[in-house]
Amino acid sequence: MAAPLRIALAGLGTVGGGVIRLIETNAALITRRAGRPIEIVAVSARDRGKDRGVDLSRYAWEDDMTAMAARDDVDAVVELVGGADGPALTLARNAIQHGKSLVTANKAMIAHHGLELAELTEKAKVALKFEAAVAGGVPVIKGLREGAAANNIDRLYGILNGTCNFILSTMEDTGRDFSDVLSEAQAKGYAEADPSFDVEGTDAAHKLAILSAIAFGTRIDFASVETQGITRIQAADIAQADALGYVIRLIGIAEVDEHSENGEGGQRRLFQRVHPHLVPFDHPLAHVDGATNAVVAEGNFSGRLLFQGAGAGDGPTASAVVADLIDIARGDLGGEAGAPFSIQVSEMETMAPAPSGHRLGRAYIRFTVADRPGVLAEITAAMRDAGVSIESLIQKGRHEEGGNVLVAMVTHEGPEARVSEALRLLEGSPALAERPLVMQLLGE
Amino acid sequence: MAAPLRIALAGLGTVGGGVIRLIETNAALITRRAGRPIEIVAVSARDRGKDRGVDLSRYAWEDDMTAMAARDDVDAVVELVGGADGPALTLARNAIQHGKSLVTANKAMIAHHGLELAELTEKAKVALKFEAAVAGGVPVIKGLREGAAANNIDRLYGILNGTCNFILSTMEDTGRDFSDVLSEAQAKGYAEADPSFDVEGTDAAHKLAILSAIAFGTRIDFASVETQGITRIQAADIAQADALGYVIRLIGIAEVDEHSENGEGGQRRLFQRVHPHLVPFDHPLAHVDGATNAVVAEGNFSGRLLFQGAGAGDGPTASAVVADLIDIARGDLGGEAGAPFSIQVSEMETMAPAPSGHRLGRAYIRFTVADRPGVLAEITAAMRDAGVSIESLIQKGRHEEGGNVLVAMVTHEGPEARVSEALRLLEGSPALAERPLVMQLLGE
Repeated sequence: MAAPLRIALAGLGTVGGGVIRLIETNAALITRRAGRPIEIVAVSARDRGKDRGVDLSRYAWEDDMTAMAARDDVDAVVELVGGADGPALTLARNAIQHGKSLVTANKAMIAHHGLELAELTEKAKVALKFEAAVAGGVPVIKGLREGAAANNIDRLYGILNGTCNFILSTMEDTGRDFSDVLSEAQAKGYAEADPSFDVEGTDAAHKLAILSAIAFGTRIDFASVETQGITRIQAADIAQADALGYVIRLIGIAEVDEHSENGEGGQRRLFQRVHPHLVPFDHPLAHVDGATNAVVAEGNFSGRLLFQGAGAGDGPTASAVVADLIDIARGDLGGEAGAPFSIQVSEMETMAPAPSGHRLGRAYIRFTVADRPGVLAEITAAMRDAGVSIESLIQKGRHEEGGNVLVAMVTHEGPEARVSEALRLLEGSPALAERPLVMQLLGE
Repeated sequence: MAAPLRIALAGLGTVGGGVIRLIETNAALITRRAGRPIEIVAVSARDRGKDRGVDLSRYAWEDDMTAMAARDDVDAVVELVGGADGPALTLARNAIQHGKSLVTANKAMIAHHGLELAELTEKAKVALKFEAAVAGGVPVIKGLREGAAANNIDRLYGILNGTCNFILSTMEDTGRDFSDVLSEAQAKGYAEADPSFDVEGTDAAHKLAILSAIAFGTRIDFASVETQGITRIQAADIAQADALGYVIRLIGIAEVDEHSENGEGGQRRLFQRVHPHLVPFDHPLAHVDGATNAVVAEGNFSGRLLFQGAGAGDGPTASAVVADLIDIARGDLGGEAGAPFSIQVSEMETMAPAPSGHRLGRAYIRFTVADRPGVLAEITAAMRDAGVSIESLIQKGRHEEGGNVLVAMVTHEGPEARVSEALRLLEGSPALAERPLVMQLLGE
């Protein structure tokens, strides 16, 4: 039997507890698969006294988690503290600089500092692994980095936030409104007390930025992800979408844009967006319900690949963390030079963010308008003047608010800039009771 | 730049051509991701003169493909010849024994000789990789072997044959009968001139046996896969299933059975079956259409993982072959000792095949009977006598055959042995125009 892989674990919240339970429950199996045991040596968290339902007495306790990085009896550090900066980042840097491999579930840290950490690991010849940072237990980082490695990825998109997907699919099943379902999700522990990180799309944007870097070989550019959350979606939108043959899902989408405004072969630019989309019933993502995540990658040889499973929770996240540890125990560090993002940081492209105005697509636009003559004429005139062609339009009285009416339309395919222009023409119109809501239709 | 990974390619059919095209088209990308180029050194096939639409002049030609295994200028051999034995197996053995890593898409060879080859690679410290052998371009071998490695897999099932899935989903969409759609599939090149290997379930059984070994750590046992094809499925079965809320899919399913006939903790036995199943509309596999493959693995921590994509074709298969080569170029051989099936062959369990009689499930049973009084009474009496409880029953005249009537029923949950017993009681009955068709309902 080879020597065990000795690990230190920082952060003993839900996921940390899950990792300990997994390593204990599946110990024999892990040893057979990894070729050697994975042994927890030291643990650390903010509050030593807290009851976590797991027996920590067998592990050394470190009050200062950063000290774990320097322990001679540790081969790999597992960071489950969270937060883009602060103690998590300090620990990560220290661990790598002390020659330890680092495994983390921390999407914010990777989205903001992943390239810096990758460069450190490339120098230190250790592994940096973060399968748990995207899509919980679904091995989509591995799927892209290794499984689809032979492909030029044309497009990447998916459902990257389980909380939003739970809320949207529950709204769909029950006809209830956003705020109502959000409260239930909070009561059940599916949503945080402050849900904005999830429902405003930030969490999904972190994950998308990480996947983009791996799929397209570009430097992570979280700041350029166009992000719009799900808070303005109403039960009426979901009903309208259903009548048209669609469900609504929060979709993160990324692709390389080779468009040039001058008609010449343009510079490669990166388009990244997290927005609610209308997804046609016959698309695999339309059947992804509850707190599930799913990622689609379209390769130039593989065609469309789909990875799907539980996007969060202690079990699935622990599954991904320990899979990374098994890779390290097996000696699969992703090549001598590491390259956590598939290619080395020095080889990554810097792509400017792609503008969205010239993108061709179909859009769903919902107006809430005063119920009086001439409003429809005003809206349709603005569409005509901006060159937006309307495919279908439904006007419907809203019982919950006196006097206001819902007008929902789907456009024919056209440049997104035209829709923006139409809305600009309508800006400040007294006919509009609130800002219109625009959602793209997910194309084939 | 590190030295290239030099490969020899045996077999220049559709997939071989695809591998050459992929390596040429995506060469720059592969080099960045693998950290070094992948270079084709030598090729071999039966007929040198054949036009394959790719330029072979840059590669050395070997008339005797086995000679490629001995070339000093080759690091890895790609076997795309096909056939469980014969030249493919000879080449594979020779390559490994000469210290070359082996990449193959040959499911029949792996299902029959995978363990022998794995033992050879474990000794030779080279890699044996066969991602392309299961589910085409979908990285499901990697997903199970590495992505889900931390989990005890409870159950594994999926759609493993694209030809069958194309036929079934086309029957579903068009209402046409099996033989009619099969002819179309043959004309389009989706099905072989002799389709029995696909439509009788043998191909899916090969793949299932390979996945079982990885998921459960058992020695490959292809011979014990209970196999039933799709040739007896009629348009009327698909219509009945639809009316009940199901689609019909050829499903390969495997799980470890700890049942003991004496009520004590039993010996672990392996249950493996490839049969057409009724899949409920709300199951992800119900939306897998066309020549797509999809595999579900249920882990004790990950929960349900789904991998889906194109199951065949030159592009997807080449994508998987080259992904294996990139792993090898990166130095990720799956650990020092190789272990192509996740654990070393010497550590694998030998499990006896599990009997199916005690399995609890719901079944669809279709009878074709003479249209005369008393037939329904005879059938339902047999069900009663065998202890089968009927949940729903439909009797329907068949226009295409005079005098015969279709009786389709779905049972309540019960042991499979009772259904077999009921059919035994009806055996030889003059009321039955043909042998009844039984399909299990895919459970949650």
